[in-house]
Amino acid sequence: MLRSLFFNPVSSFSSVSQLGFSRFLIFNEITARKSRMGTSCYTTSSGQTARLLFRQLFEKESSTYTYLLADASHPQKPAVLIDPVDKTVERDLALIKDLGLNLIYAMNTHVHADHVTGTGLIKTKVPDVKSVISRASNGKADCLVEPGDKIIFGDLFLEVRSTPGHTLGCVTYVTGDGPNQPQPRMAFTGDALLIRGCGRTDFQGGSSVQLYKSVHSQIFTLPKDTLVCPAHDYKGFTVSTVGEEMQYNARLTKDEETFKKIMENLNLPYPKMIDIAVPANMVCGLQDPSVSASI
Amino acid sequence: MLRSLFFNPVSSFSSVSQLGFSRFLIFNEITARKSRMGTSCYTTSSGQTARLLFRQLFEKESSTYTYLLADASHPQKPAVLIDPVDKTVERDLALIKDLGLNLIYAMNTHVHADHVTGTGLIKTKVPDVKSVISRASNGKADCLVEPGDKIIFGDLFLEVRSTPGHTLGCVTYVTGDGPNQPQPRMAFTGDALLIRGCGRTDFQGGSSVQLYKSVHSQIFTLPKDTLVCPAHDYKGFTVSTVGEEMQYNARLTKDEETFKKIMENLNLPYPKMIDIAVPANMVCGLQDPSVSASI
Repeated sequence: MLRSLFFNPVSSFSSVSQLGFSRFLIFNEITARKSRMGTSCYTTSSGQTARLLFRQLFEKESSTYTYLLADASHPQKPAVLIDPVDKTVERDLALIKDLGLNLIYAMNTHVHADHVTGTGLIKTKVPDVKSVISRASNGKADCLVEPGDKIIFGDLFLEVRSTPGHTLGCVTYVTGDGPNQPQPRMAFTGDALLIRGCGRTDFQGGSSVQLYKSVHSQIFTLPKDTLVCPAHDYKGFTVSTVGEEMQYNARLTKDEETFKKIMENLNLPYPKMIDIAVPANMVCGLQDPSVSASI
Repeated sequence: MLRSLFFNPVSSFSSVSQLGFSRFLIFNEITARKSRMGTSCYTTSSGQTARLLFRQLFEKESSTYTYLLADASHPQKPAVLIDPVDKTVERDLALIKDLGLNLIYAMNTHVHADHVTGTGLIKTKVPDVKSVISRASNGKADCLVEPGDKIIFGDLFLEVRSTPGHTLGCVTYVTGDGPNQPQPRMAFTGDALLIRGCGRTDFQGGSSVQLYKSVHSQIFTLPKDTLVCPAHDYKGFTVSTVGEEMQYNARLTKDEETFKKIMENLNLPYPKMIDIAVPANMVCGLQDPSVSASI
């Protein structure tokens, strides 16, 4: 099933099923005519254009990376925030305001166990924002995405890839494949693939066998220069590439059986935040009656 | 005075004064003929080329950013490391090895007071590496740079700008201005300009008046889309732009008199690492008899 989530500049929407294909076409026709503007932003290149504004943000306590992406060339500057943390919502929204962006989606790669997501809090402060999580996560959100879905902001989009194994509902968001999309591509891997490592597989429906398959079939099949942008790093790395992880990842370069044994013998302590974070993150980080599964 | 430091692929050198202009020309003629290769790296674009490999690295205890830059299109992949920390030298060198880079310069923006530099330690592990600091810092290093100097690695270079005020010897390294240089430009500002802030001015020959002049004359005169890459961030920001700081920096958007008052009234505690870090950093982080001022 292939669907698209896209930024509607006129009215907000509560369900992906409301979106018509013709509206999608019209919207893209309009934005394609706009001239490319030079913007004060952190960009990746796409041939002659540089329309992706990209910011990586760090939350020190849980070593979480939050990612801000926006179509800086679009007149409305639609933006998405991936894996925001409740404690840094004020910082993130202040930056979004400074940059003149219009936040439309607050997304999670999965139901986190180590911090409380900021998506619910963001919705209380910016009511038009839609929360996004995978349907497979069983979490509540405005938009429940499935593999193959596209999350469109301006002329840019993120593709949803199913990468369970750390949790049963983990997804990886990958920037689009196309002439006007960022080059190299970027994969927001959550905890499925970390730099030189991966997330644990012993809670929340985790499975080492499933994680191995997910990474090899959904991430390692991307172009080697694809940037790997994980949800965490504990050693101070900020980015890697698919090619680098295929060559140097300490766990996922092994064969499946060895990987399974490694994951079974990590002897990690019980996650200290899990009993608070998981129930909260199933409902966008806070009990919000306006948030409901809408698809 | 305008000079160039450049990567000599045949032999190492101990003094900039050994470099002849004709060798500089020949070296660039050779590299210009090489085809641009697609590399697995974090790139910024330069028209149709993307030869800068760029990595930002974080040291959590002192909230220090170390920057790795390399000419990924050059056959020898020459690399420079800006503001390495002693505690993360192993990590940095392992990454450099994984990426197949050839580290030629380990550089400091200034004599740090909050951590011990890794440049001396790096030299003990990779003997051909040359340490770099400003002459004005009065620190010891293989290369003592001055305003206007160019630090060349492959076909790329960093320009040295004098930005005293946090310390008397602070410099900002700025990527080159030219058709084959990264676009947008990148300014490695050390502690002169931080994201929405700046370094303190009450130690090491610091001066708020001087810092104000430095930032306004040497950094805020760069193109507005220039990326600001500071030596630290304490709130989880990773990058800003000159345009953003000109508009939103909490201190440097004020007039000079107000800025001076702000800096005089910060009431910061005595820097806890200064008595260890500064003497060590005057000699590349460790007493190394082979390191001497060479220019």
